[in-house]
Amino acid sequence: MYEFRFELTATDGAARTGVIHTPRGDIRTPAFMPVGTAGSVKAMMPQSVREAGADIILGNTYHLMLRPGAERVARLGGLHKFCGWERPILTDSGGFQVMSLSKLRKITEEGVRFQSHIDGATEFLTPERAMEIQRLLGSDIQMVLDECPALPASEAVIEKSLALSMRWAKRSKAAFGEQPGHACFGIVQGGTFTHLRARSAAELTEIGFDGYAVGGLAVGEPQSEMFDTIEATTPLLPADRPRYLMGVGKPGDIVGAVLRGVDMFDCVLPTRSGRNGQAFTWSGTLNLRNACHADDPAPLDPDCRCPACRQFSRAYLHHTVKAGEIIAPMLLTWHNLTFYQDLMAGLREAVAGQRLAAFAQAFNLSLQIKMS
Amino acid sequence: MYEFRFELTATDGAARTGVIHTPRGDIRTPAFMPVGTAGSVKAMMPQSVREAGADIILGNTYHLMLRPGAERVARLGGLHKFCGWERPILTDSGGFQVMSLSKLRKITEEGVRFQSHIDGATEFLTPERAMEIQRLLGSDIQMVLDECPALPASEAVIEKSLALSMRWAKRSKAAFGEQPGHACFGIVQGGTFTHLRARSAAELTEIGFDGYAVGGLAVGEPQSEMFDTIEATTPLLPADRPRYLMGVGKPGDIVGAVLRGVDMFDCVLPTRSGRNGQAFTWSGTLNLRNACHADDPAPLDPDCRCPACRQFSRAYLHHTVKAGEIIAPMLLTWHNLTFYQDLMAGLREAVAGQRLAAFAQAFNLSLQIKMS
Repeated sequence: MYEFRFELTATDGAARTGVIHTPRGDIRTPAFMPVGTAGSVKAMMPQSVREAGADIILGNTYHLMLRPGAERVARLGGLHKFCGWERPILTDSGGFQVMSLSKLRKITEEGVRFQSHIDGATEFLTPERAMEIQRLLGSDIQMVLDECPALPASEAVIEKSLALSMRWAKRSKAAFGEQPGHACFGIVQGGTFTHLRARSAAELTEIGFDGYAVGGLAVGEPQSEMFDTIEATTPLLPADRPRYLMGVGKPGDIVGAVLRGVDMFDCVLPTRSGRNGQAFTWSGTLNLRNACHADDPAPLDPDCRCPACRQFSRAYLHHTVKAGEIIAPMLLTWHNLTFYQDLMAGLREAVAGQRLAAFAQAFNLSLQIKMS
Repeated sequence: MYEFRFELTATDGAARTGVIHTPRGDIRTPAFMPVGTAGSVKAMMPQSVREAGADIILGNTYHLMLRPGAERVARLGGLHKFCGWERPILTDSGGFQVMSLSKLRKITEEGVRFQSHIDGATEFLTPERAMEIQRLLGSDIQMVLDECPALPASEAVIEKSLALSMRWAKRSKAAFGEQPGHACFGIVQGGTFTHLRARSAAELTEIGFDGYAVGGLAVGEPQSEMFDTIEATTPLLPADRPRYLMGVGKPGDIVGAVLRGVDMFDCVLPTRSGRNGQAFTWSGTLNLRNACHADDPAPLDPDCRCPACRQFSRAYLHHTVKAGEIIAPMLLTWHNLTFYQDLMAGLREAVAGQRLAAFAQAFNLSLQIKMS
């Protein structure tokens, strides 16, 4: 089977579970994609990412185009071979990072000119170049280039930006062309303006994509606004295509978004938090830096299957975080990714068993009890 | 078998191979002990250290006494359990690090007063306390506290220091007491003065230890002086006890020391170099930072069995070193420790096969060809 295909296996209210079939392997949805920004899910061996339960990882076009360079990765056999991950990879288009990381951005109809945050070199990213880079990387799921305006922004600003993003989406799809087994996803924009989200969804559906992302959220707005926007957007997207909420999020955000019909997620939170000494558990987050862990022989989470929990105590994690030992980010990232993947597995089973509402309620309750 | 016992299985000239039996497992000699300074062989999971081929690791009394503290480690079940390594551990006595890392040292007959390099707290280390700390950690091989004078130093300075170290050795042995299954090693001092080394060896043998270390070398003196000192010292040590050359060293140092009758080694070189982008190979060292690796699809070493060589290219290692990705020190440390352990395995087989001279010659020749 050499095609890209989304198989919906069950629904529970607006929530869905299924499988995205790709030539490089299946992606069970709802799926969480660990972020491998520059060719590495930070502090993790690829096989450990897989053991944690990931079916797919994400790579960043912006980082990879600057270093080591897309043409170089292509010469070396593509991103999968380069970074030792042979399963599916989704790449973003670079749009978001250009806005958030680079210097001296100038956006025109043609594309965006910017300076690299690494060496200051001037770069020019167009929809066509963004797609060419993703093709050179060998990405399985390629994202259109879009403009990501900072929030809050006026309706006029969002509307103008959205119009540009839709023209770029059309050019991106044309540039993607025919790539059997690979997919091209459009990105719904429109800020928190429901009618703009609707217009964006309609225009993208008209172009026709293999999947649809919801972009421009989780950029500082309240969770309720994010949920409202998702709830208004997902019904407007084709039911037979995967839906991807970009850059989200906290465990509670993911649960809420799955309830509202989202299938795919990515976020740096589990990896970045792991490097900062923070651990996710079923009863909330723990900061291993805190002195209260110094003498604690208990594991981080007695029920967790990850090496941090199976082989080490909270006291050891505390010690290695404090001492700046590299094993601390290794173990905490491993744990956090395992937690996220186990959360996704729980969500998939709950949807399949028609008991997602109870799962979500128990999840939120568990967090509230521990937080109080 | 619950005793500590050294079994010599073959010799080749002055070189020896054998097995140190301990209740926590066998140590094949000549052995290289990866350094786990503060309860972690940096950037490595314990099982990866074992997979690389290590039978024993080293822990640093100085670091562990300051953080997390010996009494705390004891309460948590000992160092093995704490750091997830159930095989043998050798601990140094803290003497060397007090001299090299701490501030405001003051040495008296009683011991050494110093300030912690972590928080400036005043600490006092005596032979009795050094042994108590190692017992609290649960160390399998415990080292006497010695004074480590900086080289070069006059004969008078070395002689005075040596006399103190020998009095401390006697106190250390008495403090070690009876610990079935655990060993206490003496440390030969005397700088590069052969007659002082002889005096030290005689006095230690008179006290009687389970093994004998050669200390105070590899502190900046030429390799030839180090080899001369080893050559003059090892014949004066009991043949039925293991001999440990502390803090050594480069691969060529190890080969030369094995030729001169040394059984055990430790050094931060493979781990520290790995964090600095440097890799050891059978044809010399490589700096993965160098641009010449950027487009190289070849593995670091095509014959190496480590994950860095089996799963990744030099181009990837170069990229991740340059990008500051944590996977770079993880992979390069793994490779370097594998190289060191494979070198030790080669040395053991060469001694057993009575062909160590040829092995050493081929090893040195290989290095010279590549270096030129």
